[in-house]
Amino acid sequence: MTTAAEVLARCAELDRHSAHPTRLERVHLTPQHAAANARVAGWMADAGLRTWQDAAGNQYGRREGRAPGLPALLLGSHLDTVPDAGSYDGMLGVVMAIAVAERLGDRTAALPFALEVVGFGDEEGTRFGKALLGSCAAAGTWDPAWWDLADADGVTLRQAFVDFGLDPAHVGEAARRTEELVGYLEAHIEQGPYLEEADVSLGYVTAIAGARRFVVSVLGEARHAGGTPYERRKDALVGAAECITAIERLVRPSGCIATVGRIAVRPGAVNVIPGRADFTLDLRAATDEDRDAMWKRLDVELHELCTARGLGLEVVENHRAPAMPCAPWLTEAVVEGIAAAGDPAPMGLWSRAGHDGMAVGAVTDVAMLFLRCADGVSHHPDEEVREIDVARGLDALEHAVLAVAERVERR
Amino acid sequence: MTTAAEVLARCAELDRHSAHPTRLERVHLTPQHAAANARVAGWMADAGLRTWQDAAGNQYGRREGRAPGLPALLLGSHLDTVPDAGSYDGMLGVVMAIAVAERLGDRTAALPFALEVVGFGDEEGTRFGKALLGSCAAAGTWDPAWWDLADADGVTLRQAFVDFGLDPAHVGEAARRTEELVGYLEAHIEQGPYLEEADVSLGYVTAIAGARRFVVSVLGEARHAGGTPYERRKDALVGAAECITAIERLVRPSGCIATVGRIAVRPGAVNVIPGRADFTLDLRAATDEDRDAMWKRLDVELHELCTARGLGLEVVENHRAPAMPCAPWLTEAVVEGIAAAGDPAPMGLWSRAGHDGMAVGAVTDVAMLFLRCADGVSHHPDEEVREIDVARGLDALEHAVLAVAERVERR
Repeated sequence: MTTAAEVLARCAELDRHSAHPTRLERVHLTPQHAAANARVAGWMADAGLRTWQDAAGNQYGRREGRAPGLPALLLGSHLDTVPDAGSYDGMLGVVMAIAVAERLGDRTAALPFALEVVGFGDEEGTRFGKALLGSCAAAGTWDPAWWDLADADGVTLRQAFVDFGLDPAHVGEAARRTEELVGYLEAHIEQGPYLEEADVSLGYVTAIAGARRFVVSVLGEARHAGGTPYERRKDALVGAAECITAIERLVRPSGCIATVGRIAVRPGAVNVIPGRADFTLDLRAATDEDRDAMWKRLDVELHELCTARGLGLEVVENHRAPAMPCAPWLTEAVVEGIAAAGDPAPMGLWSRAGHDGMAVGAVTDVAMLFLRCADGVSHHPDEEVREIDVARGLDALEHAVLAVAERVERR
Repeated sequence: MTTAAEVLARCAELDRHSAHPTRLERVHLTPQHAAANARVAGWMADAGLRTWQDAAGNQYGRREGRAPGLPALLLGSHLDTVPDAGSYDGMLGVVMAIAVAERLGDRTAALPFALEVVGFGDEEGTRFGKALLGSCAAAGTWDPAWWDLADADGVTLRQAFVDFGLDPAHVGEAARRTEELVGYLEAHIEQGPYLEEADVSLGYVTAIAGARRFVVSVLGEARHAGGTPYERRKDALVGAAECITAIERLVRPSGCIATVGRIAVRPGAVNVIPGRADFTLDLRAATDEDRDAMWKRLDVELHELCTARGLGLEVVENHRAPAMPCAPWLTEAVVEGIAAAGDPAPMGLWSRAGHDGMAVGAVTDVAMLFLRCADGVSHHPDEEVREIDVARGLDALEHAVLAVAERVERR
């Protein structure tokens, strides 16, 4: 039986499948993605699951319930990472789901649904800028406009499918139908400090906040660093820097969260005034209304700052996800699971981070179990989770599956 | 005889030797560098010069004076460019020098010195971050520490020498000795607005301001964009943005000039708070004292800003050039040349931009002729120079060579 320690060891083992020898980066449709899928498929098979990779590169395993072909309760998370990632964001949820399938073992044959485990191929959006590619394919919300998205090397998503051995024309076959699913349950590290501050192992999620993401381009004029007096400069980077500090100044007191995670300037030479600066903006809030109102303010402010400097400003929105409320009936099962693991009054919190459930919610009900992580750190090699929390998480997830079964029986 | 129009056409022809099909980028020790050297060598040979490429990749041509083996008056500039460059910065000075050698023709055999033309292989420092690599080799001020400098692909300068067909062990052979040179004369576009504002074609240079260049690293903590509340963030990019706006605020009213031309953040993902931001700083002033005093203020200010945010700050200085005064006797010859070209009281100005003369000045006397350029633009495809100004520049440079000869005779 896979213990909590073994779950952690499996997460560490997946670190080997990285594009870099010294840091973890595993992005969509790469050889590392294929290798991680293969390793996970092996664990799935060991747990008694029948395995397959779907038409979008997501890795599945399934064990039938009391009759073959019943709708499935889907457990899982994602296997891709950000650059220089930690070992648990995503992977922990997949590895825990496999461990729970193994713990349920032959009891699965008594369940009123099939049990499926999924490792989505893209949640972070690191490679193509668009997040949730794997889970959107599974949800049947694939947008053909995405085929032309290109990675940093100019490889399109279409080409990446082909290179991975997938046929872009068949991506629709990855789509799940509502009638073949009971719901989606995901375990994930909290990626925030609240469980640790409350000194508890586990929490349930009430809703997943939706982010809006933009690429903001400040347009100036590339000129010689020495020869151009200040009054003739249209320095795109100084303009962008002013925008970035303004974003923090406006957003910080509002309760929203904004992050500029990427910036690039052109031409990018030590002795040339930047003619263009492009940066990303990720904006989140507890509600879509708060978030959208904040963007309106920012949009006005950034335009004013750039206009005052004689700079142009272009904004492209490339991601918008509405907040996804977790399904109450499924969340009740998670709460029962946490209670069975020792916390009769668990903490509920909204997720500031995005999750596959945002996409999967389009096709079936969603609930989430959060595990405490050290100092709220995620997307960083220092990501850490305690063995005791994983042990409680396995108990909670196993009992949550049984609690879902009771509810499905009662229907 | 090469006309001003042909000089401009040759500059345009060199644009073909670019790493990019649609924009000009020709950097040190690349196939494009080799191709430009070959084309320039052809023009040199057509002008009656004996040609060779030196042990550092600089392209030379020489015609003997009244006796073989006399010290040489060196004319020239550089053939490398910034990314997305214009056609004239550097190249114009090389092509004009060849045209002047051609115009002097058989008269060279009467001169009390040999005439040499040089196209330096690196002035901009685009590829390895260190400027003036070509002219430092010629000046005999090569620093072996530079061998380990690497370009953006990790190729070291040492390896680039080998790939270019050069032997790093022989770089010392590129060094010129003071006794084999009479002086160095360079024609260059002004890269500033002052000649155009005064409505004159040509000017002489009094001194070349020295730049100091730094890489400034702001060190924070990469964390998840959604899960990390503001009070737990150590956002290296917001810190860097604050530094960049502070640099403008402090330097702008001071008479110094500062440029942040490059910035990179790590890990560089849309949904990760930047844990590290590295940016370059180029700082110039009319005098070394003004410049160094300004850096002291900046250094204090940047440390204070970062400390206040709980961020680390590391600064590496990777370039420092003292201001290089032009030699009065050689500059008088340039002034006479400009007068012969129609302006009896030419304008003198200090160069805010760096030039090969800063390096060459270590081994021989230096003077410079500036040509008006459109709107002060350089390091940009919009670089423009008028045919009439090139025609006057050719006259001035030719007469300056003869004026140098008179002075050498009088010694």
